[in-house]
Amino acid sequence: MSTIVQKFGGTSVGDAEKIKRAAEKVKRAKEAGHRVVTVVSAMGKSTDALVRLAQDISRDPDKREMDMLLATGEQVTISLMVMALKELGLDAVSLTGWQAGIITEPVHSDARIMEINTNRVEAYLDEGKVVIVAGFQGMSADGEITTLGRGGSDTTAVALAAALKAESCTIFTDVTGVYTCDPRVVKEARQLQSISYDEMLELANLGAGVLHPRAVEFAKNYQLPLIVRSSMEDVEGTIVEEEASMEQNLIVRGLAFEGAVTKITIEGLANRYDAMANVFSSLADAGINVDIIIQQMSGDNELNVSFSIHTQKLEEALNVIEKNCEQLNYRSIRHEDRLAKVSIVGSGMISNPGVAAQMFKVLADEEIAIKMVSTSEIKVSAVIPEADMVKAVESLHTAFELHAQPEAKVTLS
Amino acid sequence: MSTIVQKFGGTSVGDAEKIKRAAEKVKRAKEAGHRVVTVVSAMGKSTDALVRLAQDISRDPDKREMDMLLATGEQVTISLMVMALKELGLDAVSLTGWQAGIITEPVHSDARIMEINTNRVEAYLDEGKVVIVAGFQGMSADGEITTLGRGGSDTTAVALAAALKAESCTIFTDVTGVYTCDPRVVKEARQLQSISYDEMLELANLGAGVLHPRAVEFAKNYQLPLIVRSSMEDVEGTIVEEEASMEQNLIVRGLAFEGAVTKITIEGLANRYDAMANVFSSLADAGINVDIIIQQMSGDNELNVSFSIHTQKLEEALNVIEKNCEQLNYRSIRHEDRLAKVSIVGSGMISNPGVAAQMFKVLADEEIAIKMVSTSEIKVSAVIPEADMVKAVESLHTAFELHAQPEAKVTLS
Repeated sequence: MSTIVQKFGGTSVGDAEKIKRAAEKVKRAKEAGHRVVTVVSAMGKSTDALVRLAQDISRDPDKREMDMLLATGEQVTISLMVMALKELGLDAVSLTGWQAGIITEPVHSDARIMEINTNRVEAYLDEGKVVIVAGFQGMSADGEITTLGRGGSDTTAVALAAALKAESCTIFTDVTGVYTCDPRVVKEARQLQSISYDEMLELANLGAGVLHPRAVEFAKNYQLPLIVRSSMEDVEGTIVEEEASMEQNLIVRGLAFEGAVTKITIEGLANRYDAMANVFSSLADAGINVDIIIQQMSGDNELNVSFSIHTQKLEEALNVIEKNCEQLNYRSIRHEDRLAKVSIVGSGMISNPGVAAQMFKVLADEEIAIKMVSTSEIKVSAVIPEADMVKAVESLHTAFELHAQPEAKVTLS
Repeated sequence: MSTIVQKFGGTSVGDAEKIKRAAEKVKRAKEAGHRVVTVVSAMGKSTDALVRLAQDISRDPDKREMDMLLATGEQVTISLMVMALKELGLDAVSLTGWQAGIITEPVHSDARIMEINTNRVEAYLDEGKVVIVAGFQGMSADGEITTLGRGGSDTTAVALAAALKAESCTIFTDVTGVYTCDPRVVKEARQLQSISYDEMLELANLGAGVLHPRAVEFAKNYQLPLIVRSSMEDVEGTIVEEEASMEQNLIVRGLAFEGAVTKITIEGLANRYDAMANVFSSLADAGINVDIIIQQMSGDNELNVSFSIHTQKLEEALNVIEKNCEQLNYRSIRHEDRLAKVSIVGSGMISNPGVAAQMFKVLADEEIAIKMVSTSEIKVSAVIPEADMVKAVESLHTAFELHAQPEAKVTLS
């Protein structure tokens, strides 16, 4: 019998009614003859309520204790989910992260899964039980309760699926699947039947927000098919798998965008071997995420470096650099905000060198200034004025015929 | 350095402010130079909220899953308590039941503690940390989360204190100590400085409600001094310890009472060796608690038996007996409700045979009918009409000079 793993996020288990509805979906999978493991998140806003409780007591709560506190959220959901399944006549059992054998690094609030001891889960599956596992949490080797940080429940589900050699992992969520672009912005955005891990990773990193990148990477490493589908509507979702890249005519699969981008340029850096390392280590030490980095040499052997960050981090970044002015040894620093990043993603680009050029042409035709460019094998990103973001996204969606693309049914049959 | 254990009940940790106030008390104990372990319950009404959640999903929720659900309540409190202690500059760490090594029977909703592995708690104490332990919960040997049932947090505290060979265990609660009688009913009721385990057990069983009998028994077995005191007011509490019985002049230490008592009488039972066993096993099998039992032989070799139960269980009890009519073989059954039980308790009775007589005289003087009587070494109980309960209690309180008793300071100095 094949094993499948499912995951229901916080909005899909937000109240008693939603838990009952999710339980119906679990039942259907069980009745289809699978061994079923279901990972659940904390109910809707319950995590926020716990955070508020902590903040009433401490402005800067201890990380270990926050993990202890937040881990109760999923523990509530697993027990309620089992109760709902029992009401439907299914035999089910709940397991916390530590009971499910999820061993993480010994760090708090953002631990990675090190290994999963599946004995207990498999024993229950062998007894014919549906196993409900608390997402987002695990235990370190020395018995401390840990949490996995953002997207943690997705990671739990995918990691469990890999450890159990499951046939697939279905992520039930509040969207019906992965789209060519955010349908709230581009009306023509179309749901994809399939997408490759790498494409999904680029889209996830760029803020498509449906699946957490860690979960996608995990699935890719284990070649585990991931299915994204709606917990509300009963429609087909999007499958994330390696073979999606076989759709030959799909050059661009989707596009992503994000606002609140700021570009910082440091001019006249002394041209030393460690110049770049110094700049970006000092930013990293301050916990500032840098996205695109561009390095240029000026005529007189001076180094100029530009990079983009989230606008929220601007002040902090400037402080870090100015504080290290002496050590970094540069002439001037300037920044430009109110920018956005627009990206096209598709495995088909690898063998199509003209895609980036086509993107620049679309932006030029719309008279949109390009401030920075970054490319990877399957992605081209351009930083442009934030005011032009929606126009850029709509033009690119049309130009790359994303709304019109025939679903390549062949790849799924 | 001596180890002390403290316990804060649900009302004492009902919100952020109360948790902070409790933390101040923990800090004081730590600053007094003790190694401190603090057991906490779930916050105020949070258990009720969890129960309601479960009831929205299932009318008869699975016991294992209820334990899974309810155990989150204390886990929330322990993390918040540590945050509050850290705000006060104390080094503290929280432990769930299973992390604290509390091993219980493999049953749900009412498990007993089998053993406590104190290694982890002691390691933290050795590091100078205050250890905050979740009450009411433990883990079975096979890794299942269990709960201890009513009064569970008291039991956790006392069992931990015994296992750690603590100097004492302080139960912080919403009353200032143990009283000679319920002060809401008898205005002259006076707080006791000390009381013996046995007296406390009789009072607890009789509904004094301050300490759970399991906790008192545990403390008695390990000769662990128990202190009951207020989590709100800063006043001395009552100490429960073996030596309290040395107060020579205290014949009656306190009195207890409860209403809603019903007396059932079965007449004309066939006089067989197993008659009594049959009656009370059938009631026990139906989960009906019987309190006082009186057996009498009538002149013509017929057996009459009377017993008291909670009025709520009347119908059920009658059903059980009538269903087993054939097997039990009796002539008639009748019952009398709207009764109450009034009890006087005191170790001093053992050597004072006249105490019961004195009690009956007080009731007779007040023209109160006595329906049943039960005695133990340190207790005399009388079942009387419920309408006379308060009058009886007040008269007995006065007659045994409970309000006037000099506190026997000698025993505590």
